Amino acid sequence: MNDLTTDLLPIQSSTMADVVELRLREFLKKKSFRPGDALPKEQELADALGVSRNVVREALSRLRMLGMIETKKKRGMILAQPDILGSFERVLDPLILGQETLQDIFELRLVLEMGLADLIYVRKTDEDIRELEEIVNQEVHQIQKPFRVKNEIAFHGKLYQMTENDTFLRFQSMLLPVFEYVVDYEIKTNGKVEVGKVTHRDLVQLLKTGDAEDFRQGMKEHLKPHFSRLTKK
Amino acid sequence: MNDLTTDLLPIQSSTMADVVELRLREFLKKKSFRPGDALPKEQELADALGVSRNVVREALSRLRMLGMIETKKKRGMILAQPDILGSFERVLDPLILGQETLQDIFELRLVLEMGLADLIYVRKTDEDIRELEEIVNQEVHQIQKPFRVKNEIAFHGKLYQMTENDTFLRFQSMLLPVFEYVVDYEIKTNGKVEVGKVTHRDLVQLLKTGDAEDFRQGMKEHLKPHFSRLTKK
Repeated sequence: MNDLTTDLLPIQSSTMADVVELRLREFLKKKSFRPGDALPKEQELADALGVSRNVVREALSRLRMLGMIETKKKRGMILAQPDILGSFERVLDPLILGQETLQDIFELRLVLEMGLADLIYVRKTDEDIRELEEIVNQEVHQIQKPFRVKNEIAFHGKLYQMTENDTFLRFQSMLLPVFEYVVDYEIKTNGKVEVGKVTHRDLVQLLKTGDAEDFRQGMKEHLKPHFSRLTKK
Repeated sequence: MNDLTTDLLPIQSSTMADVVELRLREFLKKKSFRPGDALPKEQELADALGVSRNVVREALSRLRMLGMIETKKKRGMILAQPDILGSFERVLDPLILGQETLQDIFELRLVLEMGLADLIYVRKTDEDIRELEEIVNQEVHQIQKPFRVKNEIAFHGKLYQMTENDTFLRFQSMLLPVFEYVVDYEIKTNGKVEVGKVTHRDLVQLLKTGDAEDFRQGMKEHLKPHFSRLTKK
């Protein structure tokens, strides 16, 4: 891959805020700032960087949005533990993402569903199984979209919750709208939505009687219509 | 779960920029802005919201950081296709994340590795296998950290690349430092790093002769020391 387009990347037009934001992040890293540490004042940062206070405020505002800094009464600005998914959530809107990114996310969710089994089997409880049975019993067996989406969210959301991994659970709930969007697109082009042979009810049965591999194979069968649409790029 | 702590969430102290940022995102969504559409001018937004132009600039700067808006010569600000992982990357620093988040991310990577097989089998090529063999042949069989990390990144990175899913590949390369950090922590507490019975070389052999399930079982064996550390929460 020795051609100019990969070796000579186009120069991105950066605003002053872009530059200052990057400098501030490098500074925090280099000085090993940890959550709770107090940051220098706005004016001090502006003086050190040789830029206006307005630009520094703009850059700090970005870090505040990422949850990296907080302002405390009396102590001023401190470094905080950022919310790693907060800004991801802000941009995950199917209407503004490109078709390729949507397809990527669709595939990412399939990968997550297939990899989930091991974590579920470490952490599942009898109470979890009872809740899943409850969800399945309340499912409305219609293919009308609002019901189907509701069923999917309740059932698969509960599976993610069973991993007791909060990051994972939030991540999945962000991906769901994109997944739905891609499936809707399929329905529009193909006129129907295919359903795998293994149902939610079957999956609950597998959780009760089978091991992690049995459950994973059931999930693969459940998601088969989606897998069968995957193609070489 | 009808108690006050879940129903009555504490009021977050919001800055004006937080409020304006949220209003702008709601506005863009409500008016169905699509990538390429031109945004109103800074001053018009400030007038409509009844806030100073500085605050609007601060909020717009945040959207620019997320890749949601770009400034074009002559056309002014337009809505853009955001980089969904850009801001995620900004906060993924093991030193500022909490221990629970680090553990969550560690588990997320295990789930991804286990779910990867199906996508790899749809897209793998003979050239991919040759590259993997090359990587394995160059592996330095030492457990010194710098070599081990390099081997891990080269081998597992190539597996993700074989999915031909760019989002996925980038996502994994962001998670790797966190994974390493957690493993280092384990070494410090347990004094050693355990390695699974199935090696990288064995995995390549499975890719050549086995099916997706054979490969997945090999991966599970390869990651076994990590899985065996998973506990109920």
